[in-house]
Amino acid sequence: MRLKFSKMHGLGNDFVMLDGISQRLKLSPEKIRQLADRHTGVGCDQVLVVESPRTPDADFRYRIYNADGGEVENCGNGARCFARFVRERRLTGKKQLLVETAAGMLQLNLLDDDRVSVDMGAPVLEPQQIPFAADIRAETYPLEVDGEVFTISAVSMGNPHAVLLVDDVDAAPVEELGPKVEHHQRFPQRVNVGFLQIESRARARLRVFERGVGETRACGTGACAAMVVARLRDLVDDSLEIQLPGGILTIHWSGPGQPVTMTGPATTVYHGQIVL
Amino acid sequence: MRLKFSKMHGLGNDFVMLDGISQRLKLSPEKIRQLADRHTGVGCDQVLVVESPRTPDADFRYRIYNADGGEVENCGNGARCFARFVRERRLTGKKQLLVETAAGMLQLNLLDDDRVSVDMGAPVLEPQQIPFAADIRAETYPLEVDGEVFTISAVSMGNPHAVLLVDDVDAAPVEELGPKVEHHQRFPQRVNVGFLQIESRARARLRVFERGVGETRACGTGACAAMVVARLRDLVDDSLEIQLPGGILTIHWSGPGQPVTMTGPATTVYHGQIVL
Repeated sequence: MRLKFSKMHGLGNDFVMLDGISQRLKLSPEKIRQLADRHTGVGCDQVLVVESPRTPDADFRYRIYNADGGEVENCGNGARCFARFVRERRLTGKKQLLVETAAGMLQLNLLDDDRVSVDMGAPVLEPQQIPFAADIRAETYPLEVDGEVFTISAVSMGNPHAVLLVDDVDAAPVEELGPKVEHHQRFPQRVNVGFLQIESRARARLRVFERGVGETRACGTGACAAMVVARLRDLVDDSLEIQLPGGILTIHWSGPGQPVTMTGPATTVYHGQIVL
Repeated sequence: MRLKFSKMHGLGNDFVMLDGISQRLKLSPEKIRQLADRHTGVGCDQVLVVESPRTPDADFRYRIYNADGGEVENCGNGARCFARFVRERRLTGKKQLLVETAAGMLQLNLLDDDRVSVDMGAPVLEPQQIPFAADIRAETYPLEVDGEVFTISAVSMGNPHAVLLVDDVDAAPVEELGPKVEHHQRFPQRVNVGFLQIESRARARLRVFERGVGETRACGTGACAAMVVARLRDLVDDSLEIQLPGGILTIHWSGPGQPVTMTGPATTVYHGQIVL
């Protein structure tokens, strides 16, 4: 099987992009693992396959596979790469796309500066839906870790997030406190942990300790969760530029009930051909 | 600058291969680092650039750069990839190649099964040339590490190697003993440490703790050093198949004063185009 592919990344989260519409793909988990291997294959965090949609109102469908071959749910960085890929490969001329993903329908908007906006859906704040063990819903909760009490906020963006405000994100105890909050008994499905430093009503800095992974360069849902927490506490305005280790995401949210919009870059690194 | 490249590996040691003869290259250390970055670039252990030779009797010249942008000396895995690359890219029709490298002239032989033989030169056994602190040259030396005495052999294949015979390479204390021998005061330039298990007069298994790197999948000079040590002690015949974690290398050596020949695979993974 001879395959054309593109290598792309969104803030350092990198993808092998495959057009499964104009070329025939037969991808076993073994072939995914082969593609993703950084020494003997192409190398990537995830493989993203573009397919024809199953429902008439969608423009495309895509699937994302982890380096271990298993299919995974949606990912903001992958969604942005997808939107640029289908434009660059001339699979569509549209700039607004409706896409089927494993996490449901997704709305994407390709901007003139090549950045992509993704509708990330409305946040969920009810503790039992996050899930987080709390008697009532609140803006902040005290959380005891090793006898010390920290103030956190909790929100779900399809996955659970705990957010802590810090004075200096560079000095935040991400590696030490991250895993302890991730595995805290009050988060029965574990939790992603964000350390947020507010710089102004329009700018913030964020580091995220991702559930099951550790600190990453750019967690899209983490940036959305941080925005929701900061907006609810009226620390920021509707639009927030968040500096993550891998780069900048701009998050827009007008308030409860409204969807969160994430805007950021997607970069094409190179095009290749492989025989699998 | 639009560049064509191939991605290759020799036993898992991977290279971005660039033809600097039919395309113009201007590679700063920054561009090398960009190419080698596994998330935002192509990703590789090393970048190998093929150039025209400077002397009339050589067929080619090549240079190897580490992922940090610095130029490095020769490497057996890179030499094998080079030989397949110039054939596949039709830069030559020859199967025997004489090549200029940073470590001197190299003789390569492309076999019919696509494996490549590399003349690795004659081993150096004089302690002060390895360099290794010992009063006289011997087949084995006692080496004290943390109060315990181990039996090692010492040889240089252009770089220094210590080789220890073990009963079971899987159970060998590579991670624990490797760094202690590497930094032993009797090796003033530090040393690569090989753990060698002889299976028969024609087969052996080897793990190598590389100087400044740690355990690697396939150290070519380490395999040559292991062969020299085993042959001098008459434990093996002239030709030895050595199983490394990354795959098999076949080493041939007829004895003192003779060059060591290393034969192994080189694999083309894919071809790509990048704008740098």
